[in-house]
Amino acid sequence: MIIVMSPGATEQHIDGVVKKIKEYGCEANISRGVERTIIGAIGDERAIDQELIDALPGVEQSMHVVKPYKIVAREWHKENTIVDIKGVPLGGNTVQVIAGPCSVETQQQMDDSAKYVKEAGCRLMRGGAFKPRTSPYSFQGKGVEGLEMFRKAADAKGLPIVTELMDVRMLDTFMEWDVDVIQIGTRNMQNFDLLKEVGRVKKPVILKRGMSATISEWLMAAEYIAAAGNHNIIFCERGIRTFETYYRNVLDVTAIPVLKKETHLPVIVDPSHAGGKAWMVPALSRAAVAAGADGLLIEMHPTPCEAWCDADQALTPGELKTLMAELGGIAKILGRDI
Amino acid sequence: MIIVMSPGATEQHIDGVVKKIKEYGCEANISRGVERTIIGAIGDERAIDQELIDALPGVEQSMHVVKPYKIVAREWHKENTIVDIKGVPLGGNTVQVIAGPCSVETQQQMDDSAKYVKEAGCRLMRGGAFKPRTSPYSFQGKGVEGLEMFRKAADAKGLPIVTELMDVRMLDTFMEWDVDVIQIGTRNMQNFDLLKEVGRVKKPVILKRGMSATISEWLMAAEYIAAAGNHNIIFCERGIRTFETYYRNVLDVTAIPVLKKETHLPVIVDPSHAGGKAWMVPALSRAAVAAGADGLLIEMHPTPCEAWCDADQALTPGELKTLMAELGGIAKILGRDI
Amino acid sequence: MIIVMSPGATEQHIDGVVKKIKEYGCEANISRGVERTIIGAIGDERAIDQELIDALPGVEQSMHVVKPYKIVAREWHKENTIVDIKGVPLGGNTVQVIAGPCSVETQQQMDDSAKYVKEAGCRLMRGGAFKPRTSPYSFQGKGVEGLEMFRKAADAKGLPIVTELMDVRMLDTFMEWDVDVIQIGTRNMQNFDLLKEVGRVKKPVILKRGMSATISEWLMAAEYIAAAGNHNIIFCERGIRTFETYYRNVLDVTAIPVLKKETHLPVIVDPSHAGGKAWMVPALSRAAVAAGADGLLIEMHPTPCEAWCDADQALTPGELKTLMAELGGIAKILGRDI
Amino acid sequence: MIIVMSPGATEQHIDGVVKKIKEYGCEANISRGVERTIIGAIGDERAIDQELIDALPGVEQSMHVVKPYKIVAREWHKENTIVDIKGVPLGGNTVQVIAGPCSVETQQQMDDSAKYVKEAGCRLMRGGAFKPRTSPYSFQGKGVEGLEMFRKAADAKGLPIVTELMDVRMLDTFMEWDVDVIQIGTRNMQNFDLLKEVGRVKKPVILKRGMSATISEWLMAAEYIAAAGNHNIIFCERGIRTFETYYRNVLDVTAIPVLKKETHLPVIVDPSHAGGKAWMVPALSRAAVAAGADGLLIEMHPTPCEAWCDADQALTPGELKTLMAELGGIAKILGRDI
Repeated sequence: MIIVMSPGATEQHIDGVVKKIKEYGCEANISRGVERTIIGAIGDERAIDQELIDALPGVEQSMHVVKPYKIVAREWHKENTIVDIKGVPLGGNTVQVIAGPCSVETQQQMDDSAKYVKEAGCRLMRGGAFKPRTSPYSFQGKGVEGLEMFRKAADAKGLPIVTELMDVRMLDTFMEWDVDVIQIGTRNMQNFDLLKEVGRVKKPVILKRGMSATISEWLMAAEYIAAAGNHNIIFCERGIRTFETYYRNVLDVTAIPVLKKETHLPVIVDPSHAGGKAWMVPALSRAAVAAGADGLLIEMHPTPCEAWCDADQALTPGELKTLMAELGGIAKILGRDI
Repeated sequence: MIIVMSPGATEQHIDGVVKKIKEYGCEANISRGVERTIIGAIGDERAIDQELIDALPGVEQSMHVVKPYKIVAREWHKENTIVDIKGVPLGGNTVQVIAGPCSVETQQQMDDSAKYVKEAGCRLMRGGAFKPRTSPYSFQGKGVEGLEMFRKAADAKGLPIVTELMDVRMLDTFMEWDVDVIQIGTRNMQNFDLLKEVGRVKKPVILKRGMSATISEWLMAAEYIAAAGNHNIIFCERGIRTFETYYRNVLDVTAIPVLKKETHLPVIVDPSHAGGKAWMVPALSRAAVAAGADGLLIEMHPTPCEAWCDADQALTPGELKTLMAELGGIAKILGRDI
Repeated sequence: MIIVMSPGATEQHIDGVVKKIKEYGCEANISRGVERTIIGAIGDERAIDQELIDALPGVEQSMHVVKPYKIVAREWHKENTIVDIKGVPLGGNTVQVIAGPCSVETQQQMDDSAKYVKEAGCRLMRGGAFKPRTSPYSFQGKGVEGLEMFRKAADAKGLPIVTELMDVRMLDTFMEWDVDVIQIGTRNMQNFDLLKEVGRVKKPVILKRGMSATISEWLMAAEYIAAAGNHNIIFCERGIRTFETYYRNVLDVTAIPVLKKETHLPVIVDPSHAGGKAWMVPALSRAAVAAGADGLLIEMHPTPCEAWCDADQALTPGELKTLMAELGGIAKILGRDI
Repeated sequence: MIIVMSPGATEQHIDGVVKKIKEYGCEANISRGVERTIIGAIGDERAIDQELIDALPGVEQSMHVVKPYKIVAREWHKENTIVDIKGVPLGGNTVQVIAGPCSVETQQQMDDSAKYVKEAGCRLMRGGAFKPRTSPYSFQGKGVEGLEMFRKAADAKGLPIVTELMDVRMLDTFMEWDVDVIQIGTRNMQNFDLLKEVGRVKKPVILKRGMSATISEWLMAAEYIAAAGNHNIIFCERGIRTFETYYRNVLDVTAIPVLKKETHLPVIVDPSHAGGKAWMVPALSRAAVAAGADGLLIEMHPTPCEAWCDADQALTPGELKTLMAELGGIAKILGRDI
């Protein structure tokens, strides 16, 4: 860590900083310039709490030299991690498309969905039994009954299932129903107690980016899961909040190459929630795969106009099939398959 | 609700919308214009899920005519709600300043803090026993031991306590220690299961604004608590995330008059987390009171440079005292006291 | 336009709104609901200034039913417009890549650049003679001398040139040097006097999106150029400003399908300024073409490390060549060529 | 400047950085750590172009130690600058309120406005003759005829005038009409040619913050004016663009203490454009003065409902008078007057 002292810093201020650095087990290196004095902390600077340094009298600014994340960082783990989901590899050469309805509604709807997902060539299925809704008066999901319907429909087609966990008290139930991939939603990216708990199980976790989370905060949220013992983490970019009102969120396509550089873990994209409209999904899906995403999380509904939730963003089974063909072509250009 | 059909909408599309509106128990009113047809939904439009309407073929855009929130809305409850915190009124004529350290560290630190908070003229005390930290490797709070220290220190001075609840499983413990005000932090504003649970107890709840939550989402989050039965809700503006990097967040002072217009519930401000630097706190505190805030949540530490967390933003006891005098003057201009 | 009156609106308030609507040459249609009265303005509502309606006593909110832009709107012009740049078509089936250095430095550098641009298979060349720089102490561009160098280098290879106009007083000089495409930079997207002037010439104009401009504002900025007589407009998405600090801007890939839906004019993307780092450019370029962009504006420098400006984001000639091959593959998947 | 090399940086990379630093006339200081090598540039680092350093092979990140702005920086000019506007001091102990209509409409409207501005106790008057409008079809201002009306009305009451300059070609006309304060609008904050030109005259300049400009970019824009010779610069915070849609912009009240710390120049606030609604103006005005603003720029119209532009945000003469009394009280608490 490098600490820049303000022009008026005294010898006493400098001594205070040096003392603090030593408390963290680091050594201090002092350079006195014409305008400012600069202090370098030598040693394991991850131990130093930056805000405690910034609070010391005479400190103007400071800068970490090493990244704050460790287990998830590519710096310490060069090869791509491939997460195994009941035999389906995510993060390797094959781009995986996870498709299914926004929410579980009926057994029939889930059976139909599973059939269409399979027919389109997808190997994983999504569906929400517990739904985070802005209004307490909106449909909140079918709950445990929904998990049961989902499990049954997916098993019939041999599809591992992906579903969202909102409440830490539901984790045991998720384990009982053998949910294959636990999804942590955008509103819970920094629900640290939830992160710690899913870190204690061995199930793969899809960690969606918080609506206004920085890349660094997102990596640190994953580090919570990893530090608790679970390294089967999949990042999912799903659009960020900006000033634009035409679409729900802005898909941050730049996050894909950046994450692939910073972490060894797989990166997927949810084009359905990003744009919020079904007609935007094909363009966003193609862009994500072209930018290097390892997978997609796409909403598809047997009859979108009758969906109980987010109807506006679901593809029809036919649209999904057409899209899969396009994505296959793009994957091939990049030396991958689908 | 008003639904604007696209220029190419057919009679069949219009019929589809009318049918859906009737399913929600509303009546439809059709106006055929030169360029577009417009459909009005008459009745309790809060029941209509806007995204399900937008998904129907031929729909271009729609607009809710009434606000989606009800219990928290001033439209249905004209007078200000005054929340009673063990005899201390919040939301009335007196501006309440809640002061104390960011986190509970030691019994001595809490005893000293309580003394200074009292001496400065504040009637409520804050302090964190469970801390949401970006890094899993940072100090996570003293936990239950911290609640005990806090309770003891505050009781000695007769100060009701405010502390953050992060994990729904800790609610019983909070009730055992008789926490006077439960704080829901910015990262949990849309942790809906947590909101529902604090809605089931009768303790006052401070609901901090999510880092990038809109006013409407924030009111709806409060509606979750209210719908579960707890109407003792206090909104706390704590800065929003923007592109600016000089300060941690941008205090959204406009939210104060806007909330006072939209809701009958009290509105307070946290100037410490907003700016992130102690030297910004006096100016932001004065601005908040001048804009009509019902209270403030200010960090004060007996010895800021030795704080274990957010040291950079805590006032000294002396600075708090000076600030209280200034705030008293501003409150008086607005016909209030402190 | 639809106007929703507040619950407390009186007959006098309603009369006031009706009177104003009639002043704009529209008719008023009044619907009295249980909670609120709604007024529809029938006729050419583009003439109505929304803020003047919102200011009337008793008005709660209003909504335009038709879009405010006309000449640039696809609603009134269904087929794609193909802009002809000295025989090079932009907006048709061929994806056009405009490459070249950030700024003109020397004749040698421009001659080399032109050679590499041509060799990579690009048909248009970019280069800045006038540079908008954050600091007054940074290199401000070679000016008119730069235009001369650029013209000479590009002519030798038969490449039409694209360069930025910052100052309205320089337009005549641009015409003298026969600049083929005038670029309006992000900081000038709402420099309305500049827009009006480039609207008076017939040269194609690349209109970059303002750093925090909405889609609607951007379309309206283009409408300024179109309304002045010049319909040869090319939109260029170049990243928007958000809270993220890892990269300079966030490339808004969703803007591509959205603009293609809203306007008949061509849409290109500048991946170099968006990310701000050369290593991000290939992924962003592929994403843009996959999402349907009609072209790209890419920085390439013969020797990036010696560039005088934005060195960090320029591709080498070899990287550009490799990228062109990948882009060709993606274009083919979409039924286009490059 | 401090440069952090990436873990894989070679001796050749380090030599390349050292060579570049020396080209800028600085000396290099190399510290080799366990994980990374750090290079310090000693000397006048303002001369170093950060992006050119970041582009060098092996460089991971860099940090400026000194601020990039000089003439406007308080570091080099400790006392507050008081700008003299025809005898009215701005930036001293007296808070100045500049009031008047959004746009010049008629002689009668301006005469009435001047009377009310004077009666309310304001010493400076605002009004727009050239209006930046999102739509080319909206009223664009009365132009030179408006300047004439404004000058006449204000002179009759002895009020110096403030009006916006959009087009560099109009500067001579502004000088002819002896405009007392030239306002640079938010859309032109980085119209560098315009900044350079107003830097060549001696008239005070109000520099509004760009809609999404950082504090640092804003200070650098002022540095353009200062570097050209004009040091009579007044910063005007007018709200920034965020994700919130309830109000037009978010007034960034934190910018006030921050600017007062970073620059010696006066800082004023425009509460009218920030919120966009007249009912928000009193709260925002009080907040601004309480936070330490040196003045306000407030819209007032003799009959707001009949205004031709931004009618929704203008105070009535009576509201302005009431507000002035409140502001006087707050100023007094801070040891100032109005």
